Order: sequence, then C-alpha cells, then structure tokens
Amino acid sequence: MPKLGEFEIIERFFARAVADPAVRVGIGDDAAIVATEGEIAVAVDTLVAGTHFPADLAADAIGHRALAVNLSDLAAVGAKPRFATLALCLKQADPDWLGGFAAGFFRLAERHGVSLIGGDTTKGPLIVTVGVIGDAPRTPLLRSGGRPGDRIFVSGTVGDAAAGLEQLAARTAQAGAAARALIERFRYPEPRVALGRALAGLAHAAIDVSDGLAADLAHLCRLSGCGAVIDLGALPLSEPLRALYAIEDAETLALSGGDDYELCFAVAPADVGRVRDIAARIGTPVSEIGELEPGGAIEGRRDGRPVALAAAGYVHF
Amino acid sequence: MPKLGEFEIIERFFARAVADPAVRVGIGDDAAIVATEGEIAVAVDTLVAGTHFPADLAADAIGHRALAVNLSDLAAVGAKPRFATLALCLKQADPDWLGGFAAGFFRLAERHGVSLIGGDTTKGPLIVTVGVIGDAPRTPLLRSGGRPGDRIFVSGTVGDAAAGLEQLAARTAQAGAAARALIERFRYPEPRVALGRALAGLAHAAIDVSDGLAADLAHLCRLSGCGAVIDLGALPLSEPLRALYAIEDAETLALSGGDDYELCFAVAPADVGRVRDIAARIGTPVSEIGELEPGGAIEGRRDGRPVALAAAGYVHF
Repeated sequence: MPKLGEFEIIERFFARAVADPAVRVGIGDDAAIVATEGEIAVAVDTLVAGTHFPADLAADAIGHRALAVNLSDLAAVGAKPRFATLALCLKQADPDWLGGFAAGFFRLAERHGVSLIGGDTTKGPLIVTVGVIGDAPRTPLLRSGGRPGDRIFVSGTVGDAAAGLEQLAARTAQAGAAARALIERFRYPEPRVALGRALAGLAHAAIDVSDGLAADLAHLCRLSGCGAVIDLGALPLSEPLRALYAIEDAETLALSGGDDYELCFAVAPADVGRVRDIAARIGTPVSEIGELEPGGAIEGRRDGRPVALAAAGYVHF
Repeated sequence: MPKLGEFEIIERFFARAVADPAVRVGIGDDAAIVATEGEIAVAVDTLVAGTHFPADLAADAIGHRALAVNLSDLAAVGAKPRFATLALCLKQADPDWLGGFAAGFFRLAERHGVSLIGGDTTKGPLIVTVGVIGDAPRTPLLRSGGRPGDRIFVSGTVGDAAAGLEQLAARTAQAGAAARALIERFRYPEPRVALGRALAGLAHAAIDVSDGLAADLAHLCRLSGCGAVIDLGALPLSEPLRALYAIEDAETLALSGGDDYELCFAVAPADVGRVRDIAARIGTPVSEIGELEPGGAIEGRRDGRPVALAAAGYVHF
C-alpha cells in the first residue's frame, strides 16, 4: 500500500472544489472562513468503529453515516445544512478505503448543498467526528417546546435500521429482498432535512430518532416537562420489517432500536392537518403515534388499553 | 468508581451556564443555535492520546491543550474566538479525570470568552476533537499572502514545548526550575489570540507553529509561492531552553520541535515598526527571524553564511 501523508490524504480525497461562494477560505489554511447570515445551528457527532457501526462496514456507508447523523441533528432543529468539518482518525491510510469514505460523504453532502470546509486527519483507531453548521430557522425546533395535548408524530418507518444491523450481523448468505432493504436502511440513513425545515415554526418540539423512538421521545418529554402515551398499533412499521419479524419483535425494534434518524415531533391538534399537507408536499410520510400528556411517564397503549413498554434505548456508557 | 452515563457526564461536567447572549440554545438539544455577525472562522483539531500527548498527561492539561490548539488556529487567521464544541471519546467515565479535564478546558475558555455550545461523549480510546468558531476579521490572515522581501517574525520563544515533552518523558526526579518551566510550556500552550487579531489586515501571511517552525514556515512559503531564509542566530530561544540544551540542540528543537503554538508571520518591511508597536502594546514578544525570498526553498543562515537546516517537522502519518 502506498504511504500517504496527511497532506496528500487531504489533497487527494477531501480538498474538492467548493461551489458555494459563502466559503471564502476552505480547506488548507489554519481555519476556514465562511459567510453566514443571522443565527447558525451547530452540531457535532462522533462515530466509533465497533460501537456506532461495525468496523468492517463499507467505507462509503461510514462516510455517508458520519455526515447523515449530523445532518439529522440539523434537521431536528429545522436548520438548513451549509458547512461541515471532518476529523478522521484512521489506523492506516488505505487509498481504497479513503476513496470509498469520501464518495459516501460527498454524495450526501452534495445532495444537501453542504461544503466540506475543514478537518483534521490523525493516526489511531477508526473514529470519525463530523461537525456541521447550518442556517438556523427564525424559530428553531427545540426538544423543549412540547405541551400536553400535542399530537406526537414520527416520520418514515422506525425499527428498520436496528433490524438491518441485526441482519448485517447475521450475515445469512441467502439474505432476501426484505433483509437487504433493512440493511440498506442501516447503511444509508436519510436525514429528514426538508421535513425539519418545513416543521420549524409549526411543530412545538422535535428530536431525531438516533437512540430509539422511546428513549428519544423520553428526552423530548423530559425537556418539555410532560409525559406521553404511544399507540403501539400506530407505529409505522415497514413491509420488510413486518415480513421478517413477529409483530412484537418489530414493535420492540421500532421502540428501542436506534439509528433510524427519523424525526419525532409534537404538534398542536389544530396543526395536524397542516403537518399532513407538508408531509405530502415534501413526500415524506409521517404517522401520528400518540399524544403528549401531563406528568413525566412514557406509556404504551394498544387498542386503548395500557401496555408496558420495554424500551431502554441506546446507552452510551 | 460510580458509573456515569453520557447525560450525567454532560450535565455534571460540561453543561455550564453560558453568559454570552449570542448563545440562543446551548448544550442539550439536537444542535446549538448561536447568533453570529458577518463572516466566521471555523477550525477543528483532534488530539489522540499517545500520539499528540502522553496518555498519562494531567487531565487538566489535556483539556487545556484540546482547546488551545484550536484557539491557536483561530489566532493564525486573526479571528476572535466565540464558540467551541467538544467531542470526547473516553475509555471510562472517571469523575476525577473528567473534573480535571473540564477545569483545564473551561479555565482557558473563560479567559478567551469562549462558550462551549455542544459536543458528544463516546466510549473508546482517549481521543479529543474540539471545534471552534470565531468572528473572522475583515481581512483574514492567510498562509498564502506572503511575498518575497517580507520580514518573517515569530512570537514568544520556540522549541520550549518539544524540550518540555522530552523533559516530561525523561521523568528525572531532580527536575530543576528550567525543566519545570519547559514542561509547563508543553502542558499549557498559550494561543496567541490577541496578537493574531492585531495582525489581521497588517501581516501578509501567518501560520501557527504546531508542527515545528521550519515545517510550518514551509507551509506558509508553499502557499505564498516563495521561499525563505532563516537567520539561526535570531531564533528566539528561552532561558530555560538555553540552560538545559547545547545551542545546536536548542536550535534544532526551535526549528523542528512542534507544539509551541506561537505565530509565525510575514510582514512588509515598511510595517515592521507597526508590528513591534503592536507586540509591545499587547505584551507579546516578537522576533524577526528572516525574510521571504523568491523560489521555494527554506534556507538557514548563520552570521550571513548559508547553513543546512535539519528540520523535518512533525509527520502525521
């Protein structure tokens, strides 16, 4: 394998021409200089190989994921993604791996108009930290704005990514279309940027589903000072998930599996129609799954009757 | 040791009250929201334990360093530091270590008016990635603006941090005052923020000395399309460095030792007096150490005669 220095890695794989005129100084100086307007949204997320993704995951899926999880954070506050930084810690400088990683990263970046403006390449265990900056909306979506009575929605389907990770780990050679579809959901999470931007100023509260729907909804409830009831029958479960899992297992994955990067949000009952219109216009399905309540508990209900929720969510330490 | 979860770590050690009214939403939501004006400067740097610092370095020195190296990047473009993010990858959640790390980080942050606005805590090998955002000056200092004939300056003294790291590794029990002073230079690098801001619009080019003076000057020269001659006799060597090292070794450390985080900058001959006035006003010593030249080579000179430079600088991969 040819030896690559830090500067060659940056030059060859990451220092792409930037089209955004707001980027006054990009990669290559001590700091980047960019023009922003008004308030900005800032997020950072670290992915550790073996913890947040299998170490042998395809490099382009790692590149995609490292950016996607951050764009999902921007989506959750309703911001428009603009700029990213990439701190990449690598065991070795493998050109094939780097090419794949960069392809996955930039494919997603270009789709969202994100310019890579800086970063750092270091030698060590495979750990990727991406930082993102976006234009904040006039009224950011926060976790803390939910009120009792608000309807709880979630975008897309949940549980797929956790199921996909299981399928990936099982490595069944005969993986059918359903398993492959779930694996793709894990490999290439799609941040709900357009939906988040459209919900800013409309939804009372939002969070992205990274740790698991129940755990993330619990964060939203804690910061909103309320509880919630989830109608298990209303959980949006995909066809592939239903095809491969018994309904109880599918629901457990939907509630406690992480990595879906859907948006969970709370809206006033009077705004439910507007939310449905927005979702239809954007082409992102949304499902009403419950309601915020007074108190602090997250409760399940099936056919109107209370059921216990077994949903710990992802524990980081 | 009590088990600490991610949220407890953030709550207990990092979610401090933020005084800056520009921070609309700080730690605790999906993304921070901050108000900025005009152009911003953005930098990110990763420190890997065992590579960028000894793994057993005092926690508060690691916290200090993680922020300092980033503030130094902002200094090098003349920006005013404002906000920081912290992505902390830890083997275990040791409250003593975390308390020390946070103390070192926040002591420096407060001195520079920097608000910690977000981050991520993950489990894995000790790796710290800090991102910073600053207010960019009207005319950013870049690496690329140097011209033949410009006088080359460096702030403070160079070689101390590399010598300090040597002294730290030697662990001589009888370490005297000189060794202790050098070790402190390594432990608590002081980013030259005030100097960088004052030089913006005046110096033609600047870079911070992280990889070693010769290597960093070479970056500046490459991007400025010129070469340089360094007068070895003019290198600013500290008393402790001179006390512990033969002059040749001191010069080698000054040229090729990294981690000093001084600023190296190029100014038009006509502006040398203004630079000296600024340095005196700020209280940061600066030394004229050479001149940019046509061509691309970095050459040494002693008493007017050419000498070879043995200065590879820090190689990242």
